[in-house]
Amino acid sequence: MGQGVHVQELMGIGKRYDIDTGDRSTRVSVVVRRDGTRDLYVFTSDSEEPTAVLELDEEHARKIGAVLAGTFFEA
Amino acid sequence: MGQGVHVQELMGIGKRYDIDTGDRSTRVSVVVRRDGTRDLYVFTSDSEEPTAVLELDEEHARKIGAVLAGTFFEA
Repeated sequence: MGQGVHVQELMGIGKRYDIDTGDRSTRVSVVVRRDGTRDLYVFTSDSEEPTAVLELDEEHARKIGAVLAGTFFEA
Repeated sequence: MGQGVHVQELMGIGKRYDIDTGDRSTRVSVVVRRDGTRDLYVFTSDSEEPTAVLELDEEHARKIGAVLAGTFFEA
């Protein structure tokens, strides 16, 4: 599962995950902070600047994650 | 788990999930197609136009989902 994901420890902050999307010109980075919050960065061009940035608390990040992973089931 | 997620059947295509982010001005939509591919739409303003759109195959969507959900472990 680790292929295509680069993990970097951010001292005192948490971990940063850079994830391939299968397309060279797009990528996704997620910073998982120690308090559980996640910052989602979406890059859709070769620019260093993210196209979109979302700050998510743990609950909302889990929901989006479950939908993407295909493990979301309605209550 | 279903709270904050609106699911809509897209006839012949798959399912669309609209997911709250906890912030009124941002939201995420995911279209899960029958063939497993996912389209990720990130909205970071009140505009109807998404700020970023990503087309993901199942494998890459699962990885991003696992990182967001906190279930990603390095191989």
